[in-house]
Amino acid sequence: MTQGFFISFEGGEGAGKSTQIRRLAERLQAAGHDVVVTREPGGSPGAEAIRELLVNGAADRWSPVTETLLMYAARRDHVERVIRPALARGAVVLCDRFADSTRAYQGAGGDAPASLIASLEDHVLSGTVPDLTLILDLPAEIGLERAEARGGAARFESKGLAFHERLRAGYLEIARREPERCVVIEANADIDAVTAAISRTVDQRLER
Amino acid sequence: MTQGFFISFEGGEGAGKSTQIRRLAERLQAAGHDVVVTREPGGSPGAEAIRELLVNGAADRWSPVTETLLMYAARRDHVERVIRPALARGAVVLCDRFADSTRAYQGAGGDAPASLIASLEDHVLSGTVPDLTLILDLPAEIGLERAEARGGAARFESKGLAFHERLRAGYLEIARREPERCVVIEANADIDAVTAAISRTVDQRLER
Repeated sequence: MTQGFFISFEGGEGAGKSTQIRRLAERLQAAGHDVVVTREPGGSPGAEAIRELLVNGAADRWSPVTETLLMYAARRDHVERVIRPALARGAVVLCDRFADSTRAYQGAGGDAPASLIASLEDHVLSGTVPDLTLILDLPAEIGLERAEARGGAARFESKGLAFHERLRAGYLEIARREPERCVVIEANADIDAVTAAISRTVDQRLER
Repeated sequence: MTQGFFISFEGGEGAGKSTQIRRLAERLQAAGHDVVVTREPGGSPGAEAIRELLVNGAADRWSPVTETLLMYAARRDHVERVIRPALARGAVVLCDRFADSTRAYQGAGGDAPASLIASLEDHVLSGTVPDLTLILDLPAEIGLERAEARGGAARFESKGLAFHERLRAGYLEIARREPERCVVIEANADIDAVTAAISRTVDQRLER
């Protein structure tokens, strides 16, 4: 593998992304891969500073358009300084959230115009898009219950059930439109079953 | 005046914008106008928080594209929460820097793609553009000397003379392309002469 492989994990709150990323990273490292685990918003020092603005404060601190622009500022820094260098040296990059989170959270969930988001994807990502996107899907109310149980009232968790239902529908629409890149993983299941489903999918794609 | 009037002040470092804005604001207030003085990056609580990220740190803290996105995030918040409400109630808005600063600093000065900047102007400003832009023009080396003399090594002042010469050329190109909106003011002149030139221009436009 000389060009690296870019996997993004997507889904609503409480879908279990962190646990599954950790498990996949361990398995890939044990198999000899150079693995970079990172997250959005954040993942580079500059992007983490922008993250502080995004995750703190009242639910209406930023309008959907402002939030979209902040997300893309953080993403650009992260892509330039972490993701592209890692892919260039052949690493497998596991990223907790990427561009689809903006389509889902600020677009489907928040009504930022799809034309703005599409334009930012074109101009800002410059072709750095995931080779594989795993969408961990579960009912919004179950995800929110799980997120509340683990504590921490993050800004996006405070937006209410209707928001999170639009979010879930947004993710499923992305998967429907881009079936080559996106695989929906049933996340309302036993944690080991979710791990097994992810392992099967990743192994198939890495073998190609 | 029922729709307000939006005036932006542009130019490189040390052009004297702050002084001239203060003088114009006093004169317009004395004439009975509702005047809002504001600045970019910043001008609203959210945009001021983003400004902290933009004006501090090393000259290469952000790439030109990341910087452009942060500027537009701040601008969107400022437009939504300060400029549009002020214009809607009929105020004269005097803004120290606006969208042309991004064209000049991140575009002409920093090589952010013109297509990205144009797309952001379309999608993010949604028609909130200045009625009049005053470009305070002076040779880059004189502006930098003035800026150094007043102290404070801001991040953009540390970018060097070649950068500030591209900046000046960028502003003059904007004025050449949009002569209806933009007026170039000779700023390498006596401070009262600059004030008089600005007063004449603003009075003419407000009378229309």
